[in-house]
Amino acid sequence: MKPSGVLTLLTDFGMADGYVAAMKGVILGTTPGLSLVDVTHLVPRHDVAAGALVLASVAGHFPPGTVHLAVVDPGVGSARSAVAVETDRAWLVGPDNGLLVRAAGEGRRRIVRIDRSLAGGRPPSPTFHGRDLFAPAAAHLAGGGALLDLGPEIEELEPLLGPEIRITGDQIDCTIVHVDHFGNLVTAVPEASLGDEPDRVFVEVANRRIQGLSRTYSDRQRGALMALVGSDGTLEVAVREGSASELLGVARGEALRVILGRAGRLAPGGERE
Amino acid sequence: MKPSGVLTLLTDFGMADGYVAAMKGVILGTTPGLSLVDVTHLVPRHDVAAGALVLASVAGHFPPGTVHLAVVDPGVGSARSAVAVETDRAWLVGPDNGLLVRAAGEGRRRIVRIDRSLAGGRPPSPTFHGRDLFAPAAAHLAGGGALLDLGPEIEELEPLLGPEIRITGDQIDCTIVHVDHFGNLVTAVPEASLGDEPDRVFVEVANRRIQGLSRTYSDRQRGALMALVGSDGTLEVAVREGSASELLGVARGEALRVILGRAGRLAPGGERE
Amino acid sequence: MKPSGVLTLLTDFGMADGYVAAMKGVILGTTPGLSLVDVTHLVPRHDVAAGALVLASVAGHFPPGTVHLAVVDPGVGSARSAVAVETDRAWLVGPDNGLLVRAAGEGRRRIVRIDRSLAGGRPPSPTFHGRDLFAPAAAHLAGGGALLDLGPEIEELEPLLGPEIRITGDQIDCTIVHVDHFGNLVTAVPEASLGDEPDRVFVEVANRRIQGLSRTYSDRQRGALMALVGSDGTLEVAVREGSASELLGVARGEALRVILGRAGRLAPGGERE
Repeated sequence: MKPSGVLTLLTDFGMADGYVAAMKGVILGTTPGLSLVDVTHLVPRHDVAAGALVLASVAGHFPPGTVHLAVVDPGVGSARSAVAVETDRAWLVGPDNGLLVRAAGEGRRRIVRIDRSLAGGRPPSPTFHGRDLFAPAAAHLAGGGALLDLGPEIEELEPLLGPEIRITGDQIDCTIVHVDHFGNLVTAVPEASLGDEPDRVFVEVANRRIQGLSRTYSDRQRGALMALVGSDGTLEVAVREGSASELLGVARGEALRVILGRAGRLAPGGERE
Repeated sequence: MKPSGVLTLLTDFGMADGYVAAMKGVILGTTPGLSLVDVTHLVPRHDVAAGALVLASVAGHFPPGTVHLAVVDPGVGSARSAVAVETDRAWLVGPDNGLLVRAAGEGRRRIVRIDRSLAGGRPPSPTFHGRDLFAPAAAHLAGGGALLDLGPEIEELEPLLGPEIRITGDQIDCTIVHVDHFGNLVTAVPEASLGDEPDRVFVEVANRRIQGLSRTYSDRQRGALMALVGSDGTLEVAVREGSASELLGVARGEALRVILGRAGRLAPGGERE
Repeated sequence: MKPSGVLTLLTDFGMADGYVAAMKGVILGTTPGLSLVDVTHLVPRHDVAAGALVLASVAGHFPPGTVHLAVVDPGVGSARSAVAVETDRAWLVGPDNGLLVRAAGEGRRRIVRIDRSLAGGRPPSPTFHGRDLFAPAAAHLAGGGALLDLGPEIEELEPLLGPEIRITGDQIDCTIVHVDHFGNLVTAVPEASLGDEPDRVFVEVANRRIQGLSRTYSDRQRGALMALVGSDGTLEVAVREGSASELLGVARGEALRVILGRAGRLAPGGERE
């Protein structure tokens, strides 16, 4: 895999300080001329699961050979490892705390633990590995350097801890993993698990029941609550030209249930067709 | 017109999600090495008129041959068209809902309706045309591709609906089209309509009357309310080192009146010179 | 010194308007192909001292020959000069109001006052020197143009007015110069002035006394208050996985005292070892 010349950055550092810029300075000093793309720096502080979700939602849209640098790292300076992952189509660099797990997906080929002595340049500040350890490692890969230059190979990434989707027969219980800028309630339930009868999908959230999947936001009138498969390929709940989060008073982490087919039609409290 | 290698992006997607990054991934996968410039992603949600204003305020400052990609699109997935416009000095890509009208201005040469089958790559998600339709089309143009490759030519853009400026003799009635980061109240009233006697311009807003145009913020003492022609060439109301919006309790969309020359001096409630 | 091809931007313009994009349009029109890096555009409005601090914290991490363009400029349009500075490793461009002083540091070699007639292009808007004066000047330097092309040499920069650190024997009185995104309280006290016995450093802030310097955030348990040397090499106060600013109810500008060695151990109110 040849580097694409593109390097993305995702952190929970915010936009007001110089932290992200310092990382970019190090990167461009190591490998000039890269195209740097900010994924976001507004991941909620220390929220590894939220960062993992955003990273996974964008990685597949970049050209093969892109390097994704991600730092959401409550354990900076502790014993957690720094890692670099090579997948079928990208390199991922960040802390080994689950942040990279979703983006790595099934396509991971090789993982190395980044050795601090190989990261080059100045000794890492114990509080800013993003700048002193991850940035040089990512720039090394984006410049065509070998993965194994960075440290010894390891077998597995640490898992991402977090609420999983639970599927029981025709029922799927999950949580809202993200509320986006438009107030859409995003879940991790993939389209494939919703069956092939969109009219027979029932979504329950905040004591409301939504019947049927819409195909697009404009299928319903303005202000209407709807369920649909979002642009990431997972189930979400939306309000046309409004905010589902505000309408329902629902935030990230809250429960959502999907009922499929006959079960949905007969469930207590559901309206008959 | 040769592409400048610069592609700008303006959306109402916010900064916290990966939506903008996904668009950039698609763009750099199509045309590597472009200089990508964010205009803003904080256009108020679904506010086409506000987005149109910001886009028009920046387009003229970019080198000829720049591609401007803009997505503020409450009608995504509905029947509204996707369009690309070639002007005297730029290409504009976005939904045909008025967003591009101000930036296109008088210099528009040719407009095409983007054909989904020509946008290339994966079939567009019905909810994310920014990534699946507009981004590949914009990257096509920035890479030197022909406008007519994107779809059939059409005659006109849909108009931008919104409050217009009404000029009656020596009186101009308008609304505040934008409150900027500094609290300045920006209008769409062009400098040319303010006459050539700056001392005889009277601005009425929120029951206050301001006499005369200042040349620059530092013409008045700190905290003073003033009217002046802003850097976009339109009338604005400002407070030196303060916020006119806060001082007057005035927001976007509220009314503002300009009175010119003798009319201003004699209007009821106005102070005599 | 050869240009690195990197140009950074720091302003108090916010992210919602097109001001920063207009500057970038001018820059890329003057010198195509530059790598543009945003330091931040969220400097508190008109807060020159805060901008100076962020700029200084990042400049050293960029490759030699980088141009740093900074605009926090309450005096735009007044008599204050526009300046460009050449240091040992970078060029700095901005208003002569103290903003560039910290980043210029001891390594400044030459300073010129930018002559408006040399900035090229359109006559500067009296309210937007960022776009019409500083941007073309910075792009000129980033493209390899000579410093002395921009205007006449001057001797000194205007000083940065602001609270200084006062050292009295074993006691250092200072203010919190910055509260970062994580709620860490950042001071300008350099590591070198803290002595070589980390256990004998006492920090007093908001009626709390912290004994000893931690090496990294994870030295203490979650929620613990600690003092440490941050990634910028200056003293800061932090809470592991929490916000020191919130815990202590302390904001930028408030006082902080450091007591070193024996003085600290015997100070009234201090606990004995």
